[in-house]
Amino acid sequence: MPNKITEYLKGLKQEIDKVIEKYVPKKVSQEWLEFVFGSSHYQYTPKAVQEVLLNPIWDFLERGGKRWRPVLFLLIAEAVGGDVEKLKDFAIVPELVHNGSLIIDDIEDEGELRRGKPCLHKIFGVDVAVNVGNFMYFLPLIVFKNNKNKFEPDILLSAYDIYAQEMRNIHLGQGTDIFWHKGKTEEISEKEYFQMCIFKTGCLSRMAAKLAVVLSGKDKELTEKVGRVAETIGVAFQIQDDILDISLTGQEREKFGKLFGNDIKEGKRSLMVIYTLKKATDKDKKRLLEILNKHTEDVSEIKEVIRIMEKYKSIEYAKTTTKNIITDTWQSADKVLKESKAKSKLKDFINYLVERDE
Amino acid sequence: MPNKITEYLKGLKQEIDKVIEKYVPKKVSQEWLEFVFGSSHYQYTPKAVQEVLLNPIWDFLERGGKRWRPVLFLLIAEAVGGDVEKLKDFAIVPELVHNGSLIIDDIEDEGELRRGKPCLHKIFGVDVAVNVGNFMYFLPLIVFKNNKNKFEPDILLSAYDIYAQEMRNIHLGQGTDIFWHKGKTEEISEKEYFQMCIFKTGCLSRMAAKLAVVLSGKDKELTEKVGRVAETIGVAFQIQDDILDISLTGQEREKFGKLFGNDIKEGKRSLMVIYTLKKATDKDKKRLLEILNKHTEDVSEIKEVIRIMEKYKSIEYAKTTTKNIITDTWQSADKVLKESKAKSKLKDFINYLVERDE
Repeated sequence: MPNKITEYLKGLKQEIDKVIEKYVPKKVSQEWLEFVFGSSHYQYTPKAVQEVLLNPIWDFLERGGKRWRPVLFLLIAEAVGGDVEKLKDFAIVPELVHNGSLIIDDIEDEGELRRGKPCLHKIFGVDVAVNVGNFMYFLPLIVFKNNKNKFEPDILLSAYDIYAQEMRNIHLGQGTDIFWHKGKTEEISEKEYFQMCIFKTGCLSRMAAKLAVVLSGKDKELTEKVGRVAETIGVAFQIQDDILDISLTGQEREKFGKLFGNDIKEGKRSLMVIYTLKKATDKDKKRLLEILNKHTEDVSEIKEVIRIMEKYKSIEYAKTTTKNIITDTWQSADKVLKESKAKSKLKDFINYLVERDE
Repeated sequence: MPNKITEYLKGLKQEIDKVIEKYVPKKVSQEWLEFVFGSSHYQYTPKAVQEVLLNPIWDFLERGGKRWRPVLFLLIAEAVGGDVEKLKDFAIVPELVHNGSLIIDDIEDEGELRRGKPCLHKIFGVDVAVNVGNFMYFLPLIVFKNNKNKFEPDILLSAYDIYAQEMRNIHLGQGTDIFWHKGKTEEISEKEYFQMCIFKTGCLSRMAAKLAVVLSGKDKELTEKVGRVAETIGVAFQIQDDILDISLTGQEREKFGKLFGNDIKEGKRSLMVIYTLKKATDKDKKRLLEILNKHTEDVSEIKEVIRIMEKYKSIEYAKTTTKNIITDTWQSADKVLKESKAKSKLKDFINYLVERDE
């Protein structure tokens, strides 16, 4: 099963990348400039656009990435009976925003590596990286402009509303995460953690899902229900990512493209940390917080944190939680989506997301 | 005249600040959280919202700022015969985006002071500042949500399109500016400079103006024409800002809230720099570029740059250019706007913007 779905995803990724390149060319042209920025009353500086916008974007996009938000978008559009050909360009909206947000996260978290290469700000400077990351929040909105005549105004308006809502929410999620890993608070409940994940990670999959339903012309109720399924997938994906942070080694680690224990270095409050803090003795709890709050680069301390988490079976707990979330989510999806090929692919895809090792 | 208009602006600023506070309260509440971010399936962390979103926003907003984009919005809405009461909330969209962009610019340019206090990232950290600056790009879109029933879908859709267009453009402007002050190119034409200004500074006044016309229910032609007037005001404002960077001293400097010669320190290619490079001897040109490219903090070098610019009368040139731009702009505005009280206030306001010393 995983082989079948990974093959399928590979094919889809190529198709998605073609759409991305349709809107974001590798080489600047006057035509593209006027399409994206309007006609110039004076004179464009194409060299600047190439060097501080297009080159960094493609440096980042070509590092890979699973493009799973567009996949989710396309599978959901198909599963709700949408006209996939008509709406497929919108698949790149959450994807470009997502890539932009990784560039920005790496600046905020002082990251070193992303997808196996130095973070973008390490190569182009913080100024260029912030600007290009932010640009990627807005660039994909040209899809709206380019598809204006294909949809009724109220549908496009709902699509913009979804975009706006999730763009607010992602900054709440990221803000809460920053607040926590600055060590500003000791007590974090699981409920608060899940809510943060919904905002930080869930909201872009929710954006993908809701856009797919709305652009398929379906009603608000279905949009909300499918959105709820998607945000939960985002949460499960996040927990899985946190598990991979401390479990991959060797070649798998290289494929993952981030340093071992990076979250611990950042002092991140993952589900494993929150669970351990609840279960641990005062002594272990104190030591865990001590290491997290000092943002250590010392591998022996990172391993010590992992040992403390293992002692309280926190990693198993995170794995079980992910499985439970996905089972529950699938039950909800099962209720709202009619049986179809797309639906069964969607199921395989969701299982793949949380069983992946990359 | 200036006294009359500054009094008028003061009154309007208070009104605008009331609208801002309606959407961005100083203290977090569950009701506001649900309005902005939707209902929580799990549990919000209000303390995080207060500390990493609302406190930084208000730290920044309370430092002042002229709120001139909302003023422009309101005057234009009135001048084109719009229902100001109905649409006034939208005045805060470009204003909050503008404040967010200042926070981000200061990070990109490694700024020290803004409006007389340390830059936001110096107080809250780069992570919080990037996140909150970006949040301010999206937060004002709740005005769309809150006024949904007052406008037809196609009008709100056009308003979103305007927002999206200008948000793309501002990142092109900022990107070009970064490209230049990194010293990546020596030859910059005046046409390229004006185009960069239109994108970097003109586009938020253009956003204000176009939103005002569209939400007043006027057609595309008028929107474009008034937008063109507004972007030019933005350019004139920018050149005036660049002149103030090197001309204010003493108390006036403190009111301005930025360090003397900050643009020179950043290596910024202002109109004065571009003009000097065109007129200067090879020796002066070389020395000018040398100092700009080293991003000096040495006051004697900053003064040397000013002496070189003065030698070629570049500051007078910038002043004359601003005046000419404003005269031309007013002629265009004169043609498209009917005579009214609002129109004459708009004229006073535009003159004030480029004659200001703060």
